[in-house]
Amino acid sequence: MDLDLSRDAAALTAALVDVPSVSGDEQALADAVAGALAGLPHLTIRRDGNAVVARTDLGRPQRVILAGHLDTVPIAGNVPSRTEDGLLYGCGSCDMKSGVAVQLRLAWQLAEPSRDVTYVFYDCEEVEAERNGLLRLCRNAPELLGGDLAVLLEPTGGLIEGGCQGTMRAEITAHGVRAHSARSWRGRNAIHGAGAIIDVLRSYRPREPEVDGLVYHEGLNAVGIAGGVAGNVIPHECVVAVNYRFAPDRTIEQAAEHVRAVFAGFDVEITDAAPAARPGLTDQAAAALLAAVGGTPRAKMGWTDVARFALLGLPAVNYGPGDPELAHSAGEHVPLAQIAECEAKLLAWLS
Amino acid sequence: MDLDLSRDAAALTAALVDVPSVSGDEQALADAVAGALAGLPHLTIRRDGNAVVARTDLGRPQRVILAGHLDTVPIAGNVPSRTEDGLLYGCGSCDMKSGVAVQLRLAWQLAEPSRDVTYVFYDCEEVEAERNGLLRLCRNAPELLGGDLAVLLEPTGGLIEGGCQGTMRAEITAHGVRAHSARSWRGRNAIHGAGAIIDVLRSYRPREPEVDGLVYHEGLNAVGIAGGVAGNVIPHECVVAVNYRFAPDRTIEQAAEHVRAVFAGFDVEITDAAPAARPGLTDQAAAALLAAVGGTPRAKMGWTDVARFALLGLPAVNYGPGDPELAHSAGEHVPLAQIAECEAKLLAWLS
Repeated sequence: MDLDLSRDAAALTAALVDVPSVSGDEQALADAVAGALAGLPHLTIRRDGNAVVARTDLGRPQRVILAGHLDTVPIAGNVPSRTEDGLLYGCGSCDMKSGVAVQLRLAWQLAEPSRDVTYVFYDCEEVEAERNGLLRLCRNAPELLGGDLAVLLEPTGGLIEGGCQGTMRAEITAHGVRAHSARSWRGRNAIHGAGAIIDVLRSYRPREPEVDGLVYHEGLNAVGIAGGVAGNVIPHECVVAVNYRFAPDRTIEQAAEHVRAVFAGFDVEITDAAPAARPGLTDQAAAALLAAVGGTPRAKMGWTDVARFALLGLPAVNYGPGDPELAHSAGEHVPLAQIAECEAKLLAWLS
Repeated sequence: MDLDLSRDAAALTAALVDVPSVSGDEQALADAVAGALAGLPHLTIRRDGNAVVARTDLGRPQRVILAGHLDTVPIAGNVPSRTEDGLLYGCGSCDMKSGVAVQLRLAWQLAEPSRDVTYVFYDCEEVEAERNGLLRLCRNAPELLGGDLAVLLEPTGGLIEGGCQGTMRAEITAHGVRAHSARSWRGRNAIHGAGAIIDVLRSYRPREPEVDGLVYHEGLNAVGIAGGVAGNVIPHECVVAVNYRFAPDRTIEQAAEHVRAVFAGFDVEITDAAPAARPGLTDQAAAALLAAVGGTPRAKMGWTDVARFALLGLPAVNYGPGDPELAHSAGEHVPLAQIAECEAKLLAWLS
């Protein structure tokens, strides 16, 4: 199928929604995107599976990345799209085919952008991390993803949400001595011992640091606890799983050091970590974006794919049309006016 | 096979060990026991599955029960029995065919006991409670189990262990409000809330009450804890499983009341309970037993089948040959001298 990039972004969003692209099944849409961009002489196209990367190469002193995923959660009776009272309904309308439409419109219009632009369209964002197309691109072709700032066009309600917090999971283990519960004084109860781990969590005061002008809000929380052998046994072990959400002024290594320090004296095992991403709003490219978009930017608390750019050394922000609370709902929709506004502001920034 | 009750208790124990009777497979042994007792004119025999009850009926003012189980744990290369250096080895030698041999010897010798005696031999003690032969007898024929004192001839190393503590399990639940762990302040962490439950357990001071002259030692302990939804979710629920071991001056109802009072303010569900058993050592029959056996009796902390007699209103004690720590081990054995001593002392008590 052919995408007509000369139509307005709202019409283009509707056309994108009408090409189903549930995670793992993005080929038709990736083909359509690659086909539409192939006709533009100012872009160099590179395909990697169902990901498409299109780049200008004008030798500008700065390069920005505009990224979006092509896939959606499973369709819930909400394809094809429909428009009602200025709202476009349909699977992926909000998360995030309206953002993809803005990317395509900018690619079509910006033959000579003020900054070199890399447009990244990728697959499998809505499923387990190992299948994520952006992760695959980072591994297969990191040279395509260099630049000074990345913008992920996920729905943010038209606000700039800067960077993202990192996330780390650790298991904190309390040890005891097993015994029959009829003679409990012969053992040492590991669940009672884990009370001291919970004490640490209950008295923990999370930081709220300012990074690049945005205020983050950390958290250190139990997300799981398990202990017990049988109903008549004093348990010898109790494991508390904790999740540390850390601001982008800390690396994974610093976060791990902090967790170990907080639980000094306990058996600590870091089981999982993903880095935070700096918003970079004080850098030149981002400051210009901020001026073009207006409003008050806010810190992104949840982890998002912007952190993949952080691993490549780029600051990154989230900015796109649509209410993020509507993502993944059967009734998801996006105001047509927000799509147009997002396109206009990014166009102004890059013209 | 025929059991010769005229032989000494050590030889009889060896003969019993040589008839395999793993739980569920006691028929051959139950037949042999019933057959040997059937020839004794002073006894009335009643059979219930693989349980055998034999009673004198002399109109004595008191009646005592001597009870033992016929089954063993699975054989571990330790049948047939063998004797070495005054020790009899073999599956069930300690737990508790030596006790059964003493019962049989007393039944054979005591044509005119000073107290009426009910000899109870039962099946399936070593497996799940629902299959327990003594429980089945309590349901099918409680009229056979009346009396003033029960003696369970489980191995106690030749000491009287009086009564047993009761056991109760309860689930104490902390509730919270679920939230994404990236914005933990929007939720209320139930695992952190369960810290207050653990605080109660950590500061709990168990009672050590004296009952009928014996000192018991209670315990209230976590035996399990579970909470957590996913690695990125603030959990809305955490359940702590506790086990309360209570002395025989409390009924199940009083124990439940105590648990509810200790965890006032929390969501408490009693999930399981088994009653304690009074030792009754200050009663006449038990005082005479104590005088005959000598030594210092001690309280039984673990729950045993004596509590089934408590449900029928009888105080009960544990007293038998063999070291209880050897029960269920492949190398289990019993000193021949302890078997003879147990027989002699009970004979003296009942003559």
